[in-house]
Amino acid sequence: MTDKLIIFDTTLRDGEQSPGASMTRDEKLRIARQLERLRVDVIEAGFAASSNGDFECVKAIAAHIKDSTVCSLARANDRDIARAAEALAPAARARIHTFVATSPLHMEKKLRMTPDQVFEQARLAVRFARNLCADVEFSPEDGYRSEPDFLCRVLEAVIAEGATTINIPDTVGYAVPELYGQFIRMLRERIPNSGRAVWSVHCHNDLGMAVANSLAGVKLGGARQVECTINGLGERAGNCSLEEVVMAVKTRRDYYALEVGIDTTQIVPASRMVSQTTGFVVQPNKAVVGANAFAHASGIHQDGVLKARDTYEIMRAEDVGWSTNRIVLGKLSGRNAFKQRLQELGIESDSEADINAAFARFKDLADRKSEIFDEDILALMNDESVTPAREHYRLLAMSQRSEIGERPHARVVFAVGEREHSAESDGNGPVDATLKAIESQVGSGAELALYSVNAITSGSTESQGEVTVRLQLGGRVVNGVGADPDIVVASAKAYLSALNKLHSNVDRVAAQG
Amino acid sequence: MTDKLIIFDTTLRDGEQSPGASMTRDEKLRIARQLERLRVDVIEAGFAASSNGDFECVKAIAAHIKDSTVCSLARANDRDIARAAEALAPAARARIHTFVATSPLHMEKKLRMTPDQVFEQARLAVRFARNLCADVEFSPEDGYRSEPDFLCRVLEAVIAEGATTINIPDTVGYAVPELYGQFIRMLRERIPNSGRAVWSVHCHNDLGMAVANSLAGVKLGGARQVECTINGLGERAGNCSLEEVVMAVKTRRDYYALEVGIDTTQIVPASRMVSQTTGFVVQPNKAVVGANAFAHASGIHQDGVLKARDTYEIMRAEDVGWSTNRIVLGKLSGRNAFKQRLQELGIESDSEADINAAFARFKDLADRKSEIFDEDILALMNDESVTPAREHYRLLAMSQRSEIGERPHARVVFAVGEREHSAESDGNGPVDATLKAIESQVGSGAELALYSVNAITSGSTESQGEVTVRLQLGGRVVNGVGADPDIVVASAKAYLSALNKLHSNVDRVAAQG
Repeated sequence: MTDKLIIFDTTLRDGEQSPGASMTRDEKLRIARQLERLRVDVIEAGFAASSNGDFECVKAIAAHIKDSTVCSLARANDRDIARAAEALAPAARARIHTFVATSPLHMEKKLRMTPDQVFEQARLAVRFARNLCADVEFSPEDGYRSEPDFLCRVLEAVIAEGATTINIPDTVGYAVPELYGQFIRMLRERIPNSGRAVWSVHCHNDLGMAVANSLAGVKLGGARQVECTINGLGERAGNCSLEEVVMAVKTRRDYYALEVGIDTTQIVPASRMVSQTTGFVVQPNKAVVGANAFAHASGIHQDGVLKARDTYEIMRAEDVGWSTNRIVLGKLSGRNAFKQRLQELGIESDSEADINAAFARFKDLADRKSEIFDEDILALMNDESVTPAREHYRLLAMSQRSEIGERPHARVVFAVGEREHSAESDGNGPVDATLKAIESQVGSGAELALYSVNAITSGSTESQGEVTVRLQLGGRVVNGVGADPDIVVASAKAYLSALNKLHSNVDRVAAQG
Repeated sequence: MTDKLIIFDTTLRDGEQSPGASMTRDEKLRIARQLERLRVDVIEAGFAASSNGDFECVKAIAAHIKDSTVCSLARANDRDIARAAEALAPAARARIHTFVATSPLHMEKKLRMTPDQVFEQARLAVRFARNLCADVEFSPEDGYRSEPDFLCRVLEAVIAEGATTINIPDTVGYAVPELYGQFIRMLRERIPNSGRAVWSVHCHNDLGMAVANSLAGVKLGGARQVECTINGLGERAGNCSLEEVVMAVKTRRDYYALEVGIDTTQIVPASRMVSQTTGFVVQPNKAVVGANAFAHASGIHQDGVLKARDTYEIMRAEDVGWSTNRIVLGKLSGRNAFKQRLQELGIESDSEADINAAFARFKDLADRKSEIFDEDILALMNDESVTPAREHYRLLAMSQRSEIGERPHARVVFAVGEREHSAESDGNGPVDATLKAIESQVGSGAELALYSVNAITSGSTESQGEVTVRLQLGGRVVNGVGADPDIVVASAKAYLSALNKLHSNVDRVAAQG
């Protein structure tokens, strides 16, 4: 019988920690549902004790997800763990994931604790967690740079306390495959009770080797859980990417000889949803989910591909969910067809009012764009103005013009709370003029750290533009995303969306990498 | 004494084969100069026999590059090899890189040759190449999937004929690190004369492991050359990325114990230049060169970073050339300051007329944008309208307007050859209207496969927008890039630039992966 490799997705926790990737509760819930369709074994939904917002996210996901285990991160203290357990209460299957740093550098510089204090804290935390939840994961933060004797002592103790999964993070992305694999094997061999826990790997991609390190931990080290994120989202260079690690295990089944439960045809939809939601683009030459991942240019290659598919392809595009864009809806589609398509896309709105608002926007879009693709619907649902009641800043009207040789000009009418504002400005370009007009009234003082536009659907000049605006203010970084067939309008929406995120000023504690 | 690891960059050959990444001669020359500043050991400049255009590119690079070896690819036949030698004639140091497929699948399906025929062809090709050039590299295409006995026989024979470098491509990106490393070691151990050649690795990233595979080939297999590209550019999921492999060897010098000659502070400028030239975006969570690669979000992390840099950083941003944007030039800067900055950026134009044209555009930009950054200058030089004489399609004037509730409208005046055209159109957005206006006169029939915008300089709403338009027509894929503070204008420029690339219809043969 082949072993199973457990896929633990942390897009919503470690991925969301990426500067600018923070998501709303509804966005997280939508992604969690897609992860469930992907048949991820464990969804790390957040870090319940870090903020009230994150608590509510974990709780909502725990209530809605039935097929995957739902997990919350918690520092190694009773308050964090109790808060995690409370958020996870509605879950069909719950896991508490507690952590404390064990490397000399982190213990001394960050925690200012002695190794003995860390040892005690880890043990007591796992004991407390096991009283609340049967499924407990423990991570020694910066585990790969920890002193082996001490690490073995801590891990043996937490397994004795009942930790069911032991995860070894390469927090700073410093590992190389063969050394990381040997490290995991050494731990498993030296720790007497190691067989009582599932071993897990958690790798960062700072040197571009997160996938290879994870797989070395599995193949050479004997780990049976991989922690990963969609598109490799995560701080700095990100985490191990789910799509790459899963397709490597599937494609090289001859070597890894492991089962994964993932429905790979949901990979590309998941990738698009995460990219659209966070505004983090996927580069064309990204493995598996990049626009070029299955495209061949050179004459020799094309010839080869025609002659025998195996000559240049080791995976099939359709197996990971690449398919041609389908025209799903148009101007004449009714509310039921729209609602059904939402369900097929896994968007199950809790409120009829939300669906009505979305349908109204859909009709508005269909008036201006004859073919509506799945991506358009996702963008529509991601567009926060679908639920205007919750928004502080709302676009009401705008116009702009530019002409070579003259200064571009924009006029924007928008609501701030209950008040309507009208503003005009010129600028270097129509987008600059539009943003300046808004800023002239709002005076946020935020710095524009990133501006990008992507066409939502390709193959037509009638695509909607999806604009991402990243604002930075006093150490906070937020992304706003806006979609519209008119990219200047999309830019105004994205800017207002980012201002809304800055406005919902949630302080929260974040977690280990 | 520590061994040296030879860095062989193939951005201009294998990278350029990526659909849409084709570059003009001037663009390639500019990138070659940046690669020389990076202190790359070998620059694969192209595939001379594939087209007259590529021949000219290789020749121009051979004439201008002094510090790096310049290499041309050639199939294993006399004509290709003679053509490569001819293009390389001006080089201070030249290398001919010849290849033929050796895997059963490729020999049977693609070449339709018997193993004995392939053996003979490889031998004769290397013999012929050695008569023209002292530095000859041989690659068995799809080497990693070749039958070991046969591969050993071929490689022993080509080394006997004088091949100085033996490169083992994992053409389809199928390898895993430990197996690939063992494969290289097995070849080196079994082949009696293996010590007479430098061994090289060439990995593709289809499973996300190109960097780890390359390093396993080096560490476990004993290879001493890595073939790679800037940003991992290349067909499908791309090649091993230069910046990742170099920084892994530098950061983990304790383990790899190898010297690399790369000036790492030129990495980020090289990455930006390749990204701006090809229009291939670098995702924010890309290792080393992504916008987030050195950014930390989480509270715990930020705290940790403040307390001790080593807690979360294994590399320093400044070591790879990240620095804050510098205001280099402004409205009052003169032609000499501009020319000097061009030289500092490594842009050495051959013609005073080109510099004058660029300076005129610089002054025009400085009138509209108060702070001019290095990125703006690079964009200016990449903008093909700098040299309008060479262009078939040229933008002369345009205006556009949009207003919520009304149909966006654009008017574009442009030249096609000697004729001036004026066109108007409405559209879903101002960009759509602009592109439709141009297309209404040109009637190219090309399909828009990709549209994206990035701000060239961040930190200000006054950024220029850089638009990439990818057009597809009858199997050809071209990218056009246009920059302007007004993104609608930039879109028109990008579209015309793509049309110019479609217009310069060069047929050419492309090469192995």
